[in-house]
Amino acid sequence: MKVITRIEQSLATALSGCDSPQCPPKLAGAIRHAVFPGGARIRPQLCLAVAQACGDDQPELSGAAAVAIELMHCASLVHDDLPCFDDAPTRRGRASVHWAYGEPLAVLAGDALIVLAFQTLAQAGAQAPQRLGVLLQLVAQGVGVPGGIVAGQAWESESRVALVTYQQAKTGALFEAATAAGAQAAGADPKPWRMLGQWLGEAYQVADDIRDVASDPAVLGKPVGRDLALGRPSAARELGLEGAIRLFGDLIDSAKASVPECAGAAGLRQLVEAESERLLPRLMAANLLADLAAA
Amino acid sequence: MKVITRIEQSLATALSGCDSPQCPPKLAGAIRHAVFPGGARIRPQLCLAVAQACGDDQPELSGAAAVAIELMHCASLVHDDLPCFDDAPTRRGRASVHWAYGEPLAVLAGDALIVLAFQTLAQAGAQAPQRLGVLLQLVAQGVGVPGGIVAGQAWESESRVALVTYQQAKTGALFEAATAAGAQAAGADPKPWRMLGQWLGEAYQVADDIRDVASDPAVLGKPVGRDLALGRPSAARELGLEGAIRLFGDLIDSAKASVPECAGAAGLRQLVEAESERLLPRLMAANLLADLAAA
Repeated sequence: MKVITRIEQSLATALSGCDSPQCPPKLAGAIRHAVFPGGARIRPQLCLAVAQACGDDQPELSGAAAVAIELMHCASLVHDDLPCFDDAPTRRGRASVHWAYGEPLAVLAGDALIVLAFQTLAQAGAQAPQRLGVLLQLVAQGVGVPGGIVAGQAWESESRVALVTYQQAKTGALFEAATAAGAQAAGADPKPWRMLGQWLGEAYQVADDIRDVASDPAVLGKPVGRDLALGRPSAARELGLEGAIRLFGDLIDSAKASVPECAGAAGLRQLVEAESERLLPRLMAANLLADLAAA
Repeated sequence: MKVITRIEQSLATALSGCDSPQCPPKLAGAIRHAVFPGGARIRPQLCLAVAQACGDDQPELSGAAAVAIELMHCASLVHDDLPCFDDAPTRRGRASVHWAYGEPLAVLAGDALIVLAFQTLAQAGAQAPQRLGVLLQLVAQGVGVPGGIVAGQAWESESRVALVTYQQAKTGALFEAATAAGAQAAGADPKPWRMLGQWLGEAYQVADDIRDVASDPAVLGKPVGRDLALGRPSAARELGLEGAIRLFGDLIDSAKASVPECAGAAGLRQLVEAESERLLPRLMAANLLADLAAA
């Protein structure tokens, strides 16, 4: 089975409780809207790729870890799109959850997704109870306080924050959780895998900053220029577009170099390379730099 | 150590991550504001009382269960008070979290508290990994979909809901989780303890309905008449005040009768009785009925 198929099926299974007549129908709809159809599912793919590189002897547990990470990501998108944050009418090219279902159900759908992420881990953990506690903590650290994605979003309410602190919490933390959880689910030491997630997460955020100032709204699927409009810390603003593009390349190199030596190392480096091309195509970077030089 | 002292200390420990310089200061403040000073802490008390009735051989785990239940309750209050729901300016006699810290931090504080609840369980579970998976699921069922408190809140967005379905999800589910988790943390079968939580949770909701139409705002600490104003399902509205007061008494009797035979049964029945008096004092009920008869 292709990895992406495995992820989509596992997500559908995780959401099956929404089909119960006990579940309020609009809440069920809002939850499904938040998860399907998804984006690139890069975090769960990364989680499973690390699990496979570590032997993946408990595929149900690694699958649950991947699902948990993706559900947390979906929850954060739903809440970040709310009127009190980005007030984004669209997400992934269609209505955001609060536009489609209203603000109350968007708040509750996000809450329910966070709970469902942990519930999915708890269910799968029955077969490997000795791995469950640490696995839960790795995921929780990527999301909660002091340094997870919730904290990252909260830094936007502070008058000052260092760019690297903000980006590590806002994006790096959940990528780090994805790689560490993949290793932990497979019974390996999660520590050597943390940096891969951190570098990739930072690269992702920098690419987002670059596209925020440079991209075509039709391609990105959400309004552009919002980070600047909202006064958010941005690599493209702090370093300039050229500096941000150079930083992105450095982060991808660091991510590839951080892959621990193992049977799956070459495959993981290829995944990082492919993701780099998806996030900021070489041609696009070259064109941006040419435009800058001509300006 | 008194039970309430144990609960307050455990809550403070659970929130210690907020003291980290890594944590955004306003988010840390909003989280603390949501948890301290607390209300009656009835759910964690109930959780610990059940654990003690079952032998409480892992006090760290039962303490974590009690904390997790209370953090979930605090999270639900923060989100329920948001402008898109109750828009409550006050809670427990002072500013609600979104009034004190703004809406973005209130959303994020609720999210962080949900994560922290699971994290607290995961940490304590290291010493009893065989109990952790089920314990997490019991707590998750009380909060998420299809039938937890998030679903209970979501029923308010539906045009129709049966009163009992609404009350069981909105309030009963977390009380049920409190009793079941207390038993599970102590290594006992959680099933026989579920009904105690359900009855007590329903009684709590009915008492809330009664006080919503009858109480003094200075006593309750939040604006009254809101359930009626918001068109929410209400026992006092469906059954009338007299019917609701009779239902409350029946629910308390059912709760007492449901306590399984065990060493701590008498103490638990006393706790239910004391809680009944706190929720709806006999004198208040008698006065309300007398007012009705005179009207």
